[in-house]
Amino acid sequence: MAEIKTDIAIARAAAKKPIREIAAKLGIAEEDIVPYGHDKAKISAPFIKSLQDRPDGKLILVTAINPTPAGEGKTTTTVGLGDGLNRIGKRAAICIREASLGPNFGMKGGAAGGGYAQIVPMEDMNLHFTGDFHAITTAHNLLSAMIDNHIYWGNALEIDTRRVTWRRVMDMNDRALRGIVASLGGVANGYPRETGFDITVASEVMAILCLAKDLADLEKRLGAIIVGYRRDKSAVYARDLKADGAMAVLLKDAMQPNLVQTLENNPAFVHGGPFANIAHGCNSVVATTTALKLADYVVTEAGFGADLGAEKFFDIKCRKAGLKPAATVIVATVRALKMNGGVAKDALGTEDVEAVTRGCANLGRHIENIRQFGVPATVAINHFVTDTDAEIEAIKAYVAELGEEAIVCRHWADGSAGIEELAHRVVALADSGASQFAPLYPDKMSLFDKIETVVKRIYRGAEATADKSVRDQLAAWEEAGYGDLPVCMAKTQYSFSTDPTLRGAPDGHTVHVREVRLSAGAGFVVAICGEIMTMPGLPSKPAAETIRLNADGEVEGLF
Amino acid sequence: MAEIKTDIAIARAAAKKPIREIAAKLGIAEEDIVPYGHDKAKISAPFIKSLQDRPDGKLILVTAINPTPAGEGKTTTTVGLGDGLNRIGKRAAICIREASLGPNFGMKGGAAGGGYAQIVPMEDMNLHFTGDFHAITTAHNLLSAMIDNHIYWGNALEIDTRRVTWRRVMDMNDRALRGIVASLGGVANGYPRETGFDITVASEVMAILCLAKDLADLEKRLGAIIVGYRRDKSAVYARDLKADGAMAVLLKDAMQPNLVQTLENNPAFVHGGPFANIAHGCNSVVATTTALKLADYVVTEAGFGADLGAEKFFDIKCRKAGLKPAATVIVATVRALKMNGGVAKDALGTEDVEAVTRGCANLGRHIENIRQFGVPATVAINHFVTDTDAEIEAIKAYVAELGEEAIVCRHWADGSAGIEELAHRVVALADSGASQFAPLYPDKMSLFDKIETVVKRIYRGAEATADKSVRDQLAAWEEAGYGDLPVCMAKTQYSFSTDPTLRGAPDGHTVHVREVRLSAGAGFVVAICGEIMTMPGLPSKPAAETIRLNADGEVEGLF
Repeated sequence: MAEIKTDIAIARAAAKKPIREIAAKLGIAEEDIVPYGHDKAKISAPFIKSLQDRPDGKLILVTAINPTPAGEGKTTTTVGLGDGLNRIGKRAAICIREASLGPNFGMKGGAAGGGYAQIVPMEDMNLHFTGDFHAITTAHNLLSAMIDNHIYWGNALEIDTRRVTWRRVMDMNDRALRGIVASLGGVANGYPRETGFDITVASEVMAILCLAKDLADLEKRLGAIIVGYRRDKSAVYARDLKADGAMAVLLKDAMQPNLVQTLENNPAFVHGGPFANIAHGCNSVVATTTALKLADYVVTEAGFGADLGAEKFFDIKCRKAGLKPAATVIVATVRALKMNGGVAKDALGTEDVEAVTRGCANLGRHIENIRQFGVPATVAINHFVTDTDAEIEAIKAYVAELGEEAIVCRHWADGSAGIEELAHRVVALADSGASQFAPLYPDKMSLFDKIETVVKRIYRGAEATADKSVRDQLAAWEEAGYGDLPVCMAKTQYSFSTDPTLRGAPDGHTVHVREVRLSAGAGFVVAICGEIMTMPGLPSKPAAETIRLNADGEVEGLF
Repeated sequence: MAEIKTDIAIARAAAKKPIREIAAKLGIAEEDIVPYGHDKAKISAPFIKSLQDRPDGKLILVTAINPTPAGEGKTTTTVGLGDGLNRIGKRAAICIREASLGPNFGMKGGAAGGGYAQIVPMEDMNLHFTGDFHAITTAHNLLSAMIDNHIYWGNALEIDTRRVTWRRVMDMNDRALRGIVASLGGVANGYPRETGFDITVASEVMAILCLAKDLADLEKRLGAIIVGYRRDKSAVYARDLKADGAMAVLLKDAMQPNLVQTLENNPAFVHGGPFANIAHGCNSVVATTTALKLADYVVTEAGFGADLGAEKFFDIKCRKAGLKPAATVIVATVRALKMNGGVAKDALGTEDVEAVTRGCANLGRHIENIRQFGVPATVAINHFVTDTDAEIEAIKAYVAELGEEAIVCRHWADGSAGIEELAHRVVALADSGASQFAPLYPDKMSLFDKIETVVKRIYRGAEATADKSVRDQLAAWEEAGYGDLPVCMAKTQYSFSTDPTLRGAPDGHTVHVREVRLSAGAGFVVAICGEIMTMPGLPSKPAAETIRLNADGEVEGLF
C-alpha cells in the first residue's frame, strides 16, 4: 500500500489557482470579487444584487447518519461530490460553513474535508480567514456595551438589570468567562450584575447573519434581537437601544460570502457557521442563494446527523429562505454503521456483517425521515480501506430494500475520480423533478405542537414533555406574536433520543424540553433538551502549546 | 469663499488607484502584496525579507506642540508632507498608526488626515481594516485563557492567583468590563478571581507587534511577557505556559504592514497603533523599516506632543530599532499657540498677536528638546482660514530667533501644492547630514535616573518623586535584569507638567511617579504619573446610535 499522506500534507501540496480564476469559472469578473490575499475572496454585494433575476441551480443537501467516534466524512463527501459533479461536466459549486478559531487552540483544528477532497487554504480557514467571525464578535459586543452603557446613564428604557439576557461573546475556549460579575469598581464603572460570555458561533448575531437575505434584512433582524426584559416582562429590543444600524455597519463586509477552492480548483463558498444545537447549523443563506445563481448544481451540508441537521436545514433555512432542495445524500460508513450496530470503537477493524446490518436501522430511519420532507434521498458509502466487500454488500442490500441505491465513494483516496457514480445518481435525482419539498409542519401551529411534531415524526419519540414554566413561556411568546416561528431543537447529536448512548433506531422515548429560548432576530424558538455548552473550555494539554511557526513560516501543530 | 467640503465628502470623491498600482510606485510586484479588497494590501513577509540588503531612505518625524482642543493637525501635516515630497519629485512614503475601532462607536471616528491631505479608504480604516487589531485581541485573549486553564488543571507553575497581572482585551469602549470577577459558577468553571478588560490598543501584544523586527523577534518577545507572579514573587512568563508559538501564529498576518494611499495616490503604510501613554505610541517598526527600504524619504508621526510622542519615538522606537531620524517637523497652529498663550477656546477667532507670542514658549521648548536628541527641527504652521498675517508673522519671528524657519502650510485646503515649501526645507535638512541622533539617556543608567532625566531635561521639572514601594519595585526589576530597558512615561499630554491645565512652558514642577509597570515583552518600564484610563466608556449618546448604512450601502454617522 502506498504511503498515506496527511490532510495537511495534501493541502500544502495543492496546486491552487488564483482566486480570480476560480471566480471566472462562475462567470464572476475580477472587479466583482473582493480579494483577501490571492486565494480567498468575497463576492461583492452589488454583484450579488445584480443576479436577482437569474434562474436558480439545483440544491443538493449532504447529511449523515447519527455521528459516532468512527467518523462519517460528511464534509469530505460534500467536497468530493462538488468535485465529482464538475468532473462529469456539470457547473457545480460547494457551500459549507466556516470554522470557529477558538476551539482550534484546544483540540487540533480540522481540515475542510479530508484526503483528496478538501477545500483550501486550510491554515487561513482555521485562523482568521476573512474576518467574518471577528466582525460578528464585535457587533455582538457593541450591543452588550450599549446595554450596560444605557443602564449606566440612567436606564431610560427601564431594563430590569436582573433580566438582561444578552451576554457577550469571544471566539475562544475560555471557561473562566462563562460566568462573571461585571461593572465592579464603583460608580464610574456602573452597576454590578451577573453575566458571562459565550463562544462567537453561539451568538444570535451569527444565526442572523446566516439567515438574512441581504443587508436590509440583516439590519431589521438585528433590531429585533431581544436584549432583556422590563419588570413588567415586556421585551427590550436592540432597536430600542439604536444599536441595529451600527451592528449592520460592522457586519457589512462579513455579509458578503467567501469564495475559495477545492484541491481540484472548483469553487467553494465557505460562509457563516452557527451552532447546530442552539442555532440551525447551516452555512449562510446569502452564500447558498448566490451559489444557486452562479452554478447549475450547489452541494451543501447541514450540521450533525440528519435528525438535527437536515431537519433544521429544511424547517428553518429552506422554509425561511424559500429554498427548494432537489435531492439529498445521506453519508454512512461501514465503521459508523457497525458502531450503530453495537460494536465498540476498538473492534471496528474486524469484519462484522451482522453488526453492519443491525446498524443500518439508523440509516434507514434517516432515509424515511428525509422522504417525509418530499425530497429524494440517496446514500453515499464513504469508503475506508478496512471495509470488506461483504460489509458493503450488506448496506447495499439494506438500502435496495428501501428502493434506493447505496453508492461506494472513494473521493478521500481518489478525489473526483472516486465519486463519479454518486455524481451521476445525484444529477439523475435532481433533474428528475421528483422533489416535492415541504417543511415538516406549518407556520400556523402552536410552538409546543411543533416541538412534539419533530419529536414524534423525526425522533420517533412517544411524547415531548415540559414543565409548566416552559409551556407558559411558549404561550407568552405566542401571545407576543412569535407563534409562527419554527422551532430549533437542541439535543444530543448521537442518538434519536436524548440519551447519547442509545445508538441505532430507538423509538417510544420521551423527550423532555428543559428550557426554551427566543431568538427573535434569527427567527426561531430554541427548545433545549439536555445540557448545552455555549462556552467550551481548553483541555489540560491545549493544542495551543504545540502550535507554532516553523522555519519556513508554515503553521505547525494546528492540524 | 467656496463651499467647504467635509473630510468624508472629500474622501468619498477620491480617485483611488488600484492598490497594485500604488505598490508598483514603490517597486513592489503584484505577487509580493497580499490584497485586502482592491484598495488595501499587506506587504508579504518574504518580500520584506528580500529587502534586507538595500540602503535605507531618510526618516522624517512629524511631531507637535502640546495638544489643545483647538487641534494641531499632526496627521494631516504628515500626510500633506508625504504628498508634498512626492510633488517635488521625491520618492516618499508615509507611515502612520491604525485607528482603534471601539472608540469610533463612542465619539465620532476620525479621518486619517483631513481636508485634501487624507489617507483612504477612510471607512475601512475606521472599521475592521485588515483585521490586525482583531488578531491582537485574539492573541492576547488566548494567553488569558491559557492562564486560567493552567490554574484550572492544577496550576503546576504555582501562579499566585492573587497576582495574575495579565488581563483580557476587547476593541470596544465597554466600562462594564473594567473590573470583573471571572470563573463564577462552580467547579467546572474554575477558581473565581478579580480581573478585567482593557481596550486592545492598551495590550502589551500591540506594543510588541509594533516593536518586533520580524516574526522570530515577535515570538521571542511574546514569550517574555510576564503574566503574573508566584508567592515567592518570581515571574511567570507566557513562554512558561507555552503560549508564545500559538500567539505568533495568530499574529503572522498582522505582522505584515498595510499599504494604502493618499488622496493624491501616494503610498501610505498604516500599521499598528499602541497607546501613547502606557506604550510608545508609534506605528510599527516593521512598517517603518520596510518603507525606508522602498522610499527615499519616509514621513512618520508620533503620538501626542513632542514631550511624550517624540521622546518615546527617539528613546524607545529609534533606540530599539536602530533608526536614525534625519529631520523633525514640529506642527503648530495659530489657534493652538493662542490657547497655549492663555486664550479660551471660544475666543480663538479674534486676532491676538500677543497671546500667540506668549504661546510660542511652548513651541520653543519643543524645538530645544528635539535638538537635545541631535535631530534638526523645523516648524510647520498648519494654516487655518481664521489666521491673520500678523499672527503668522509673530510665529515666524519667534522661530527665527531660534535659528529656524516656521513655514506656512496649506495642505488642508490645497493638498501637496500647499506644502511645497516645507517639503523643500525638509529635504534640505535631511540631506544636510546635520542629524547626529542619539537617545536622551544611555541604556546603562538606573531606571529611576532615566525617569528623572526625562523629567528634568524634557519636562523641565525640578524633580521626579516616587514612594518607596515604587523605588523598591524598580530596584527589584533591575535586580532581575531589566535595568537596561528604556522608560515609557505615562502622563498628561496637555502640559509639560502633570497638571493638564498648565499650558505654555512651565518649569520647576515636581513629577510624581504613582505606579510602575514592566512590559517585559515590549521592552520598557512604564512610569505612570497621573490617572491612566485603559478601558474607555461610551458617552450618554454614543455615536453608534446614529451610525448606519444608507440606501447606497455607504456608512453614515461614523465621521
